[in-house]
Amino acid sequence: MAMIWKKVTKVAVTAGAAEGGTALNAFDNALLAAGIGNVNLVKISSILPPEIPVIDLPKIKPGALIPTAYAAITSEVPGETIAAAVGYAMPDDPAKNGVIMEFHGHADRQQAEDAIRAMLDEAFRVRGEPIRELKVFAVEHTVERIGCALAAITLLAEEDLV
Amino acid sequence: MAMIWKKVTKVAVTAGAAEGGTALNAFDNALLAAGIGNVNLVKISSILPPEIPVIDLPKIKPGALIPTAYAAITSEVPGETIAAAVGYAMPDDPAKNGVIMEFHGHADRQQAEDAIRAMLDEAFRVRGEPIRELKVFAVEHTVERIGCALAAITLLAEEDLV
Amino acid sequence: MAMIWKKVTKVAVTAGAAEGGTALNAFDNALLAAGIGNVNLVKISSILPPEIPVIDLPKIKPGALIPTAYAAITSEVPGETIAAAVGYAMPDDPAKNGVIMEFHGHADRQQAEDAIRAMLDEAFRVRGEPIRELKVFAVEHTVERIGCALAAITLLAEEDLV
Repeated sequence: MAMIWKKVTKVAVTAGAAEGGTALNAFDNALLAAGIGNVNLVKISSILPPEIPVIDLPKIKPGALIPTAYAAITSEVPGETIAAAVGYAMPDDPAKNGVIMEFHGHADRQQAEDAIRAMLDEAFRVRGEPIRELKVFAVEHTVERIGCALAAITLLAEEDLV
Repeated sequence: MAMIWKKVTKVAVTAGAAEGGTALNAFDNALLAAGIGNVNLVKISSILPPEIPVIDLPKIKPGALIPTAYAAITSEVPGETIAAAVGYAMPDDPAKNGVIMEFHGHADRQQAEDAIRAMLDEAFRVRGEPIRELKVFAVEHTVERIGCALAAITLLAEEDLV
Repeated sequence: MAMIWKKVTKVAVTAGAAEGGTALNAFDNALLAAGIGNVNLVKISSILPPEIPVIDLPKIKPGALIPTAYAAITSEVPGETIAAAVGYAMPDDPAKNGVIMEFHGHADRQQAEDAIRAMLDEAFRVRGEPIRELKVFAVEHTVERIGCALAAITLLAEEDLV
């Protein structure tokens, strides 16, 4: 079997929220708002590979298959506030992996951020690693008719970029 | 951190329904009925890469890892009608990606197809693209004991084919 | 358009259970207990490629993307017993693929194992193949505060191993 290697060289974080005519369209529209509406997300659980820089979301090739840790919530209850968040923490030792946590719920942005921080703290306490860097990205949305909030961490290779 | 990659060169659509002794067996049997029961589906959200032809489902290598957008529903309520559908639409501009939508529910085939069409219409209205081609594939199933209906769009590489 | 691909050369099975401060931390801790807490699981449905040996879980590179069939259950009901199991069966004909089944539920280990066996029996009856080898891996956990049980079959490539 011939194989070509694709090396994950960058990580980018994004979040978005939107309304839509259906739950799936609201999800699609939130992905578009987050800048990842024209790529194929492949859901992963939830590790930041060692020594990969975090960059601003670049332009990704349409249809690219992008390993992504993400949280999303859709609601059809007008007036309800929903939130989604992702965060990562990296250990002191650069040879060791970081950890990604996701949160979604009927919550506001602050609650989502607090939930991520608490989960990352436990993840590093359990691993016996001090945290060198911790970042959280959250979005909240108050539903008009059918709304979606999502947050995502994408693992990117050079070949995925335009 | 490395991954290996292959080139998606074809897309194929399929659907199937079946009974089973358990919900998971009904799902397995529906996959077999759809011709994808001996491959590993890797769920994706939900973009058709640009300039990839849609072909009839070919024979795929057993165990191949196949990025797939799919909808599935299992029911254990005898007499209930369930349906699953997928559809895609492609834009006028062949350099731009298409969009895939999925539907599953306690519905009949017509309702499933209508839902897909409405979602694809919105997806293209939002993207500001006219639709060049739109196709929907749906299956309905009336449950005897434990039934499953599923529809899937598979992204294929040459290496996946027998 | 490119996607993740690897030549799977080994399969390893594992299971674990743990408590955590949140449902997601319990899941993370169960992954750590199972020896796969620092890799990225990519969920697959649920085929064992032909002619791949099953080995003891090796040390996997941190952050590696690992196609994995898994079952997991989290409970926040103290005293409740939860179980997760995976199993595989291989056919007589080594050129044909095996099948993986997953189970999770409010059950004990024996019930989880029995469920897997029954599902694998049906999967091979339906395929018209005699079973050459069948193995089941299950774990049960009695919840203290927030607990998770999980079982997983990982598809490994040489490049994933330390």
